[in-house]
Amino acid sequence: MALVFPSHPQVSVSLLLLLSVLSLAAGGKLLVVPVDGSHWLSMREVLDGLRQKGHEIVVVAPEVSVHIKPTNNFIMKMYSVPFTQEEMDGSFREFSKEAFAEGSFLERLATIHQRVQRMSAIYLSTCEHLLYNKELIRYLEESEFDALFTDPFLPCGQILAEHLSIPSVFLLQHIPCGLDIDATQCPNPPSYIPRIFSGNSDHMNFLQRVKNIFFDIPHSLLCHLLFQPYTKLASEFLQQDVTVLDLLRKASIWLVRFDFVFHYPKPLMPNMIIIGGITCTHKKLSQEFEAIVNASGEHGIVVFSLGSMVSEIPMKKAMEIADALGSVPQTVLWRYTGEVPPNLPKNVKLVKWLPQNDLLAHPKTRAFITHGGSHGVYEGICNAVPMVIMPLFGDQMDNAKRVESRGAGLTLNILEMTSKDISDALKAVINDKKYKENIQRLSELHLDRPIHPLDLAVHWVEFVMRHKGAPHLRPAAHDLNWIQYHSLDVFAFLLAVVLLILFISVKCCMFCCRRCCFKKGRKSKSGKSKTH
Amino acid sequence: MALVFPSHPQVSVSLLLLLSVLSLAAGGKLLVVPVDGSHWLSMREVLDGLRQKGHEIVVVAPEVSVHIKPTNNFIMKMYSVPFTQEEMDGSFREFSKEAFAEGSFLERLATIHQRVQRMSAIYLSTCEHLLYNKELIRYLEESEFDALFTDPFLPCGQILAEHLSIPSVFLLQHIPCGLDIDATQCPNPPSYIPRIFSGNSDHMNFLQRVKNIFFDIPHSLLCHLLFQPYTKLASEFLQQDVTVLDLLRKASIWLVRFDFVFHYPKPLMPNMIIIGGITCTHKKLSQEFEAIVNASGEHGIVVFSLGSMVSEIPMKKAMEIADALGSVPQTVLWRYTGEVPPNLPKNVKLVKWLPQNDLLAHPKTRAFITHGGSHGVYEGICNAVPMVIMPLFGDQMDNAKRVESRGAGLTLNILEMTSKDISDALKAVINDKKYKENIQRLSELHLDRPIHPLDLAVHWVEFVMRHKGAPHLRPAAHDLNWIQYHSLDVFAFLLAVVLLILFISVKCCMFCCRRCCFKKGRKSKSGKSKTH
Repeated sequence: MALVFPSHPQVSVSLLLLLSVLSLAAGGKLLVVPVDGSHWLSMREVLDGLRQKGHEIVVVAPEVSVHIKPTNNFIMKMYSVPFTQEEMDGSFREFSKEAFAEGSFLERLATIHQRVQRMSAIYLSTCEHLLYNKELIRYLEESEFDALFTDPFLPCGQILAEHLSIPSVFLLQHIPCGLDIDATQCPNPPSYIPRIFSGNSDHMNFLQRVKNIFFDIPHSLLCHLLFQPYTKLASEFLQQDVTVLDLLRKASIWLVRFDFVFHYPKPLMPNMIIIGGITCTHKKLSQEFEAIVNASGEHGIVVFSLGSMVSEIPMKKAMEIADALGSVPQTVLWRYTGEVPPNLPKNVKLVKWLPQNDLLAHPKTRAFITHGGSHGVYEGICNAVPMVIMPLFGDQMDNAKRVESRGAGLTLNILEMTSKDISDALKAVINDKKYKENIQRLSELHLDRPIHPLDLAVHWVEFVMRHKGAPHLRPAAHDLNWIQYHSLDVFAFLLAVVLLILFISVKCCMFCCRRCCFKKGRKSKSGKSKTH
Repeated sequence: MALVFPSHPQVSVSLLLLLSVLSLAAGGKLLVVPVDGSHWLSMREVLDGLRQKGHEIVVVAPEVSVHIKPTNNFIMKMYSVPFTQEEMDGSFREFSKEAFAEGSFLERLATIHQRVQRMSAIYLSTCEHLLYNKELIRYLEESEFDALFTDPFLPCGQILAEHLSIPSVFLLQHIPCGLDIDATQCPNPPSYIPRIFSGNSDHMNFLQRVKNIFFDIPHSLLCHLLFQPYTKLASEFLQQDVTVLDLLRKASIWLVRFDFVFHYPKPLMPNMIIIGGITCTHKKLSQEFEAIVNASGEHGIVVFSLGSMVSEIPMKKAMEIADALGSVPQTVLWRYTGEVPPNLPKNVKLVKWLPQNDLLAHPKTRAFITHGGSHGVYEGICNAVPMVIMPLFGDQMDNAKRVESRGAGLTLNILEMTSKDISDALKAVINDKKYKENIQRLSELHLDRPIHPLDLAVHWVEFVMRHKGAPHLRPAAHDLNWIQYHSLDVFAFLLAVVLLILFISVKCCMFCCRRCCFKKGRKSKSGKSKTH
């Protein structure tokens, strides 16, 4: 059927508008390769936003996972993996235990190393099962996606983007070993940008700056440990010699879950879009939770969650925590799936799950006890709730350090803390006004933005879909090698020129001096001969 | 009169809403110290946006200026200066003549130096007359402004902000000598970021990179030449030893008229907000211009303006231009205030002023002949009109180079161009489809943004007014000296440690060797003595 445009201008304008709305509703086609765990939570928010814009979203995920479950919101393409849900859950229980295991520094380091190795093997095997799933890959090849949306924490998505020759958008906070810094070509002076895991702030004394530089060495080793297997896998699968760094450099846009009320100010590149606080969108509290909060009286509530990765806490530790929670008049809502401690006080309600962000948004919430995952911390900042942070692993110690440096909370060492420490910290953040004032100030700065980070994220994914990438934001630095980037060849050349000029000048001087001396010598000789 | 809150919740919510609207309408109080010329055009757009938000805006400006004229939109505080409007206009006529004056490279360099000296003297004297205007300063001291909005092209505004102890927001494209780079602590690798005036693009060969580094030397000299007098003035006025760099570093927000469809991608700092294309907002064409455009028939029009700084062109050059304009079938709208060239073709309409952006937005506009000022170039990009650029001075050559490198226009040397050159260039950008396609692509990328740059600018000025600055966006790099920033002290320390270890190792080795040799020697000696 041919479309005939009516000649009346108003009608034709309406028709054009209708057509543009229809084309918007038809939207584009987006392939999503998510990373499981809390990473999925913020990605899902963006995908919901994109779905509302009428795009077709295909999520490729393993059949076995923690958070990524089949849903009707997106087209879910699940692929088989060589482990069962029970094995996965068992692995997380193991993980919980390890997080609380005491021991010497070396013992703990060995445990962390084993954990990283184990998790890496699971992730790598998952990636292999995706890339070598011929049926799924054929479907993806035939689907003609506009772009791929992934989390570069694992480079599997970008390998797929390269295979399908489609532009990619990344969503991340950071890659633990700092590979994102190299891949974006973002300057990262060690003099004021604290390295991950270093425990430094942005104001460092001389020894802290020495320590900060030293942290680049284990980061390089960690990068090698984590990504070398993917370099091999990518080279085999793509049938060309590529490194993970080469692949990550091709990303069009990096959506970075940063906000400078929480992260220390540092340089950015034009294709890095700052979207910290993306998960802080409120829904109405369910009747069940509304009732608990309302029943808390004038003292209000405390929200307590160590995240979905921690299913169990050793009973001794759980009892110490329970004991401390009983020392405050607030009702404590504790998300916990482990065995109930026998000394659980009356003011503590254990729940298997809680609507964390919506509870934090309630005006009766007085404090938030958290493990310091970035999502939780942003929700604490967004809702202006002072925090007691018990970091467990990864970047949580850095997050805790930042919150504490802003005077918006206190940090506890989960292995060494006593019941009194917990109680003291909790009472302090609830009763000492400065914590509330500081978090309130951070919250006001965080929320005073020209556009919601979720809209910003949706816009930039759509931008890449519409324009097949964003090459105008790609710095020319990507086309230089390390020596060229740092102008070392230019400096060497200039040094050579200066040395050559110096050499020639010295030679000239020496030549002139010799000529002078020679003349003088001859003169004095001839003078002498005359006098003789 | 006391406000009594009604007890009915809906009424009280409405009242609160009304109060918040009223408080918004009451708004804040902003002091503006603008820079004259085209700088004022984009600043005025932001001020109009701020006025609509209900803020009280006080503009402090010299009685004699090119563009800043008394208006009822803002409170204008004009101060006297030691020169008349006639002298100022004369200076600009002189300036026009100089831009077209031919001569050797050294003669032209001398002319530019004289021009910079003359303009600097005018600006400095204007600044002195502002700062030492006791009555005006007393008024400003008593006015309790929330923030100061200025263009750091001249540091007078920031000196005043320091005196009044209020936070400041800057609006700029760049400071010609690159002082903005130092003041923002923004990394600026010479390997892929072309220096102003260097004529380099972001992709440089080895020799271009050598040239690029050399351009940092005249920039330092230019900075000294331009800002040393202000350092002296500021130190005297503020009665403390400060440099212009110290002062500029205190800015809360830098609104930078950049967009990476036009500028080469480079690092940014968190307090640098990118707002290129701020002036591209359309109004309806007046009947007079609408009639000219409609009468142009199928060939459409060409818009021609060398900006408000050029009042006159030498007659020989003007006749050459007129000759070339006659060679195209388009109607040419030429903004020109000089003597009419006798050979003016029929298709050329001379006008004293033209609504440049609104004309460029007209679908009948085929090409734009411009001097390459950044405002004009952004309007060309925004409206997707291919350009013929005749750069005159300042950064216009760099702007032209960038447009040409994007395939969106052609550049002509204003001194050397012949009538044929102009005609060829104009015909090329009109008839060769690639120019239109390239500028159309740039335009689409430029206009596909999550928020209009004007709204972004208004938001960040308001942000600084609301929060009394933006200290959370200030990098800790400002608290480091040059050696610390580049970690030179840390590297020296590490080198010393390595050398010390090497020295001790060598000494130990030598000691051991000597012991061994000594023993051997003794042994062989004792052996010898035994055999003897």
